[in-house]
Amino acid sequence: MTLAPIASFDELSVGQRFEFGTLEMTREEILDFGRRFDPQPFHVDEDAAAEGPFGGLIASGLHTLSASFAQMIRTGLLAKISMGGAGMEIAWPAPVRPGDVLRVSGLVEELTPSRSRPDRGVAKLRFMAHRVADGAKVLDVLGTVFLKR
Amino acid sequence: MTLAPIASFDELSVGQRFEFGTLEMTREEILDFGRRFDPQPFHVDEDAAAEGPFGGLIASGLHTLSASFAQMIRTGLLAKISMGGAGMEIAWPAPVRPGDVLRVSGLVEELTPSRSRPDRGVAKLRFMAHRVADGAKVLDVLGTVFLKR
Repeated sequence: MTLAPIASFDELSVGQRFEFGTLEMTREEILDFGRRFDPQPFHVDEDAAAEGPFGGLIASGLHTLSASFAQMIRTGLLAKISMGGAGMEIAWPAPVRPGDVLRVSGLVEELTPSRSRPDRGVAKLRFMAHRVADGAKVLDVLGTVFLKR
Repeated sequence: MTLAPIASFDELSVGQRFEFGTLEMTREEILDFGRRFDPQPFHVDEDAAAEGPFGGLIASGLHTLSASFAQMIRTGLLAKISMGGAGMEIAWPAPVRPGDVLRVSGLVEELTPSRSRPDRGVAKLRFMAHRVADGAKVLDVLGTVFLKR
């Protein structure tokens, strides 16, 4: 899914919402990410996961975060203005299981022109992932990013 | 690097510190992670990165986060008690470049026995990555995790 790239920080407005399309969290990708970055039994071992706290395999929260972030970046919305991020506040309110399809969306929460650097602004952008099957929110991120003016 | 696994939430104490060893952020891994999860020019394209806001290639913040988290998990410290995480507050105070070696460490910030679930506690664990070459902090994460009692 592609979106028309925004040309400047100044084109954004607080309250603006974006839809970034959907992605599937496959079993193979869940296992692969878990093995590389979060090798805990409930992310990498089907049998141990079945006996574990979630009653089955779940995606690493870092995987849900990275895959949802990638979905947003790939739309190209921020491609002309992104100057990197300073931080994130993340919540994982529900586990993600193999085969879950997630809808990724965004919301502009705060826009502050930089006083020291007139070429940029600081934006607080929320992005979220909801499971399509039941509407449950599985990821909520408030990111602080620098955007070109 | 491996550490003796902690057997219960109740073995932890506020102020306790841990060292999780070092890892290298290689150019190949930076490009690979960027292509999969954060395909912005300053993470995936050497030439464009040289002209970009960081004057060269830098690691995706999600990569620094995931690689540092993996370093902590692989020590096995929490292997017997980890029941997953609820959220994180992340800061990336300085960029990570190819070849940077990072030292990962941790600090127990808060411990709260669960009132509703006597089998677990909620811990706020900070983990950080510092670049060995100059001591600069490149990652600071306050994570909220559930741990078995």
